[in-house]
Amino acid sequence: MKVRDFKPVSNVDRLVKQLRYTAFNGRALAEAVDILEEMVSDQNTIRLLGFAGALIPAGFRRVIAEFIGSGFFHAVVTTGANVTHDLAMALGGEVHQLQKAIPDAALRRMGRMRIYDLYTSSKSFLLLERFLKKALESLRDGVYSTYELLKHLGSLVDDENSFVAAAARQDVKIIVPAFYDSILGVQFWTLTQGRNLKIDLSKDLSWLVNLQFDAKGRDRSVGAFILGGGVPKNFIFQSALIADHPLRYVVQITVDVPEYGGLSGATLEEAKSWGKISSKAKVATVYCDYTIALPIIASVLFIRAKRIKA
Amino acid sequence: MKVRDFKPVSNVDRLVKQLRYTAFNGRALAEAVDILEEMVSDQNTIRLLGFAGALIPAGFRRVIAEFIGSGFFHAVVTTGANVTHDLAMALGGEVHQLQKAIPDAALRRMGRMRIYDLYTSSKSFLLLERFLKKALESLRDGVYSTYELLKHLGSLVDDENSFVAAAARQDVKIIVPAFYDSILGVQFWTLTQGRNLKIDLSKDLSWLVNLQFDAKGRDRSVGAFILGGGVPKNFIFQSALIADHPLRYVVQITVDVPEYGGLSGATLEEAKSWGKISSKAKVATVYCDYTIALPIIASVLFIRAKRIKA
Amino acid sequence: MKVRDFKPVSNVDRLVKQLRYTAFNGRALAEAVDILEEMVSDQNTIRLLGFAGALIPAGFRRVIAEFIGSGFFHAVVTTGANVTHDLAMALGGEVHQLQKAIPDAALRRMGRMRIYDLYTSSKSFLLLERFLKKALESLRDGVYSTYELLKHLGSLVDDENSFVAAAARQDVKIIVPAFYDSILGVQFWTLTQGRNLKIDLSKDLSWLVNLQFDAKGRDRSVGAFILGGGVPKNFIFQSALIADHPLRYVVQITVDVPEYGGLSGATLEEAKSWGKISSKAKVATVYCDYTIALPIIASVLFIRAKRIKA
Amino acid sequence: MKVRDFKPVSNVDRLVKQLRYTAFNGRALAEAVDILEEMVSDQNTIRLLGFAGALIPAGFRRVIAEFIGSGFFHAVVTTGANVTHDLAMALGGEVHQLQKAIPDAALRRMGRMRIYDLYTSSKSFLLLERFLKKALESLRDGVYSTYELLKHLGSLVDDENSFVAAAARQDVKIIVPAFYDSILGVQFWTLTQGRNLKIDLSKDLSWLVNLQFDAKGRDRSVGAFILGGGVPKNFIFQSALIADHPLRYVVQITVDVPEYGGLSGATLEEAKSWGKISSKAKVATVYCDYTIALPIIASVLFIRAKRIKA
Repeated sequence: MKVRDFKPVSNVDRLVKQLRYTAFNGRALAEAVDILEEMVSDQNTIRLLGFAGALIPAGFRRVIAEFIGSGFFHAVVTTGANVTHDLAMALGGEVHQLQKAIPDAALRRMGRMRIYDLYTSSKSFLLLERFLKKALESLRDGVYSTYELLKHLGSLVDDENSFVAAAARQDVKIIVPAFYDSILGVQFWTLTQGRNLKIDLSKDLSWLVNLQFDAKGRDRSVGAFILGGGVPKNFIFQSALIADHPLRYVVQITVDVPEYGGLSGATLEEAKSWGKISSKAKVATVYCDYTIALPIIASVLFIRAKRIKA
Repeated sequence: MKVRDFKPVSNVDRLVKQLRYTAFNGRALAEAVDILEEMVSDQNTIRLLGFAGALIPAGFRRVIAEFIGSGFFHAVVTTGANVTHDLAMALGGEVHQLQKAIPDAALRRMGRMRIYDLYTSSKSFLLLERFLKKALESLRDGVYSTYELLKHLGSLVDDENSFVAAAARQDVKIIVPAFYDSILGVQFWTLTQGRNLKIDLSKDLSWLVNLQFDAKGRDRSVGAFILGGGVPKNFIFQSALIADHPLRYVVQITVDVPEYGGLSGATLEEAKSWGKISSKAKVATVYCDYTIALPIIASVLFIRAKRIKA
Repeated sequence: MKVRDFKPVSNVDRLVKQLRYTAFNGRALAEAVDILEEMVSDQNTIRLLGFAGALIPAGFRRVIAEFIGSGFFHAVVTTGANVTHDLAMALGGEVHQLQKAIPDAALRRMGRMRIYDLYTSSKSFLLLERFLKKALESLRDGVYSTYELLKHLGSLVDDENSFVAAAARQDVKIIVPAFYDSILGVQFWTLTQGRNLKIDLSKDLSWLVNLQFDAKGRDRSVGAFILGGGVPKNFIFQSALIADHPLRYVVQITVDVPEYGGLSGATLEEAKSWGKISSKAKVATVYCDYTIALPIIASVLFIRAKRIKA
Repeated sequence: MKVRDFKPVSNVDRLVKQLRYTAFNGRALAEAVDILEEMVSDQNTIRLLGFAGALIPAGFRRVIAEFIGSGFFHAVVTTGANVTHDLAMALGGEVHQLQKAIPDAALRRMGRMRIYDLYTSSKSFLLLERFLKKALESLRDGVYSTYELLKHLGSLVDDENSFVAAAARQDVKIIVPAFYDSILGVQFWTLTQGRNLKIDLSKDLSWLVNLQFDAKGRDRSVGAFILGGGVPKNFIFQSALIADHPLRYVVQITVDVPEYGGLSGATLEEAKSWGKISSKAKVATVYCDYTIALPIIASVLFIRAKRIKA
């Protein structure tokens, strides 16, 4: 395919369509959108969304909520921090942009907790704690998966931008494999001291593996959209390995490169040697901050799905 | 400023306007566009464009040509490779996308020279050589700057997507500080053996420093848009230092980070300590492959300048 | 401090001492070693080791085992994959270097699972499964933390290079916050179906938070050495936050940069705004593949502790 | 080859020998040293050294000077900035470590020019200017290559740590393809106004291409050690292409990754498709800050060459 010179254009779908004929990550972005478009409209495919990093405080809750609301994904695997921030923001907790460089020691004195060029405050976490306390009072003792707990919490939240609420409405499971590695996990631990209310992550593993095992039995394929690396990426890939049902579509958006040997940056090719991804899979990796790639991808997918006007 | 949840949208200007309220490089991209918009419409500012890396073979010649054609920049500093590819493509040389992984030794046997996920062939360089031979025959002996040579070459090229041709038409200077570090430079060297036709890069330095010295004298500010690092970034910054007229607008798009101490990744803040950039300058750095960032930036700048329809 | 020109030298301690007078990550490495030396010899400090990424299959099990055997650390937080590989290697499972580029689909057919430039095979995991099956038979039903489970497993392993075995001997706790995100976790889940044998990660959280809360009560400081980012980094920092006892020493070795906003690459300065790290803490970040930085750091620490001959 | 667990050790050669059996960039570093050892002791090989980035102010002048003094390299290709700093330091100019974070605007007021965690001052450049003025007075009018100019300058410098002086003594050519992109270039330009003293970079190109062309004619191979990317890497590779004599040994130390398509990060495999590197070449790429990799490599090479005591 001959490279074609890009021409500025106002519509983001036409912008991405042109990138298909360019190179490097611009081209990869266009290929990623094409694969995702095919994946989300393939009725015979179970679709998983994994995301790590500070996606939610960065302002992309609503995108995830709309993905879920549009039926694009059947399950979500993410970090406790993203769930924590989603709920806190839904409850009125605020995240602000830092407008200039302030030393971190000074931010500490001002009660501002920094996330690169953002800050939040303990007020957000107090709002979450108050909410959680009440939410747990209405939850009977027992052993829960994270997706069961989050469905309960999501059902109590009234915010159309919350992806946890959207998932609860649509009965899309949210799995948080490192649950206690988050403010939410810690608050849960504190608030359930003395109760017989437990999180059992093996239930989450069972559900996700069974989902894929079942898909295999019914000749349905499985696809994944991975934003960032870490536990969400590994947990999704691992479940495909265990179910012995390699993924057929995989798109990852990451800034972790393979040259240092870690799983977060590992290529999708490498995953084929493990049987996590099918050798016939449609795959694309875009090396890009997802605060740039995700808004483009989401906008184009919604245009193509006729959910927003071109 | 409170973070606002991004909402998918079809118009790229409205997409970027929303990113202004998000975080990380998405936010930085929006800030970069705002600064560039202000810079290119500031009639009291001399505007420089620097770019390194394989931007031209990647498919972004026309963007640069339209920048020049729109009067956005008064001078361009770039690498010999980008000029080489622009001319070769204008002459019918082709750059193709690689469609699958092929070992480089096999590509070698097929006569395909790889640029990551692209390839070109020696045919491109033969076209260039034939053109250059003729072009040099019509150039009298003497000592030339690179901008003079490139104006001559650009004036002989008939391709609206060529940025070298666009610059020749608009009398925008193109400076290539490492001229001999390119196929074009090598062909020039070969074809001028025995002639008294020379490139003197000190003429390029003089012109660029004088441009800024003159701007200083007339109370005009200077701004720069830098894509990638390397010599173009340093040469522009250095000329501001020598003219003792720190830059007032600077936007850089790069994937080189500061943590390794090199100039390509150096922050714009660091340049303030040198007096290369004014402490009051409007600056933004976007860590992103420019094959993604540039098409967005260009499209939004043209929408805002009413050069394309929103 | 004036930069001093480095002079080649055969002793790695003298090499690092010279780097102290250089720049960038060379200087940072020397500062990191100085901080770690002070930290591991500070009897009034609780010392934590966190590591993510493929450190163990890469050949650095023995270094971790020697750190533990030397009393350098009181607790370890890591990934399930590293524990999985440590046990598999202790049981005779092999990890090999790839000697040339082989397509991943071909590796799949050869039964080779790739980790960048390494490969392992399912034999390793079968050895682990057989071992685990037996180990779990000797474990009575109940609810266990990961450190309790790993102490049991480590006590059954006979390999001086195994860090899990070393930790069991020294009663150093190993915490794996995303336990089910690993082959070991999956095998545990499979082998305990139908039994009343459970992992409860809130016990791990309790222990680690209490360790730091207790340190605070006794005026003892806490320090951390972090290799890679991910869950281990966050889990250690979070426990300092909850115990409200900011860390006094922190060294991190990473290739994740801050410019993309994620926690793995977040600066140690940022952690001060949260109260995870003390504003008076001694900190250093080295941007380097730990397969290069760790062998140097470990060698110099052992030389200075007179555990190996200079 | 089976991975072997690394064991801390005091001798840097034995440290690196062990890394040969590990993974990722640790393994690559060991392979790089083996290739360089073979290359520098291969009497039938022309050896080139290329380096970019702030290597010299970072404290690694003496390493380069010792490489040259030991006969390891026949020619050096570098940036004007590195030559500038080498000469300034030789003349008494100082580079200092920054001991804490100071805003760049404040550094500006203090007359400190920052290079990441270093600073220098205009005094260094004044010393250089005074020296250069005098040096140029003793140089008759004419057209010079950069290697001729630098030989003259190096011969006037009395500092055993200066690599420019070492090269002058050994008659090793130093080529600076982007000469005017540096303080030295700018001072030269200023001081030669009105004189008939010119730099002609085509002479540098001629010499380097002829060196390789000649090597080809005599069945001698060519090898290169590349620190950082940019113009030095490209200029060396390009000269191999033009001489049609692909390199037989190449080691590069870089933090630029291939995933963004630029030449600095391009793989050595890619260079094989162009015929810049032989398909049978011995090559290694180490992704590492050279302030860490270079002192290790240099020390081991000198141990193995018996230039320092093991």
